[in-house]
Amino acid sequence: MKFKAEINVMPHKELLDPQGKTVAKNMKNINLAGVEDVRIGKRIEMMLEADNMDSANEKVEFACKKLLSNMVMEFYTYEVKPA
Amino acid sequence: MKFKAEINVMPHKELLDPQGKTVAKNMKNINLAGVEDVRIGKRIEMMLEADNMDSANEKVEFACKKLLSNMVMEFYTYEVKPA
Repeated sequence: MKFKAEINVMPHKELLDPQGKTVAKNMKNINLAGVEDVRIGKRIEMMLEADNMDSANEKVEFACKKLLSNMVMEFYTYEVKPA
Repeated sequence: MKFKAEINVMPHKELLDPQGKTVAKNMKNINLAGVEDVRIGKRIEMMLEADNMDSANEKVEFACKKLLSNMVMEFYTYEVKPA
């Protein structure tokens, strides 16, 4: 079966996010007031082949841990759907 | 009112995504078979202050167009919720 995985990898809330801070500051330069607490992470979308939903979830969990996120600085959330 | 915006900025489907291709290849190196068509983009989460939902959506749309995405190479989707 084919599945689609949507993975979000974001910096931990406890950590400063300099990229986000910079974007928040720059919102004022484009005349956009009231924006705060911008955090920037990664979004990964992929297709995968697995026997069933459980196996697909397991694969995505493994990929997140081993390759897609740095667990010291980031956390991940994901959603797997049949494609 | 306070709103939370979740924005995804992804490379256009017509474009090659070299970062995604590299990750897809590397899945084999961590013994993960069956993963294909990996695409990597940005995920932006931010809080904003706006009078109502319409105004919040407008602000996010403006930020996406002007600052957060490069419309030549990327497209964006977003969701705004009351926070």
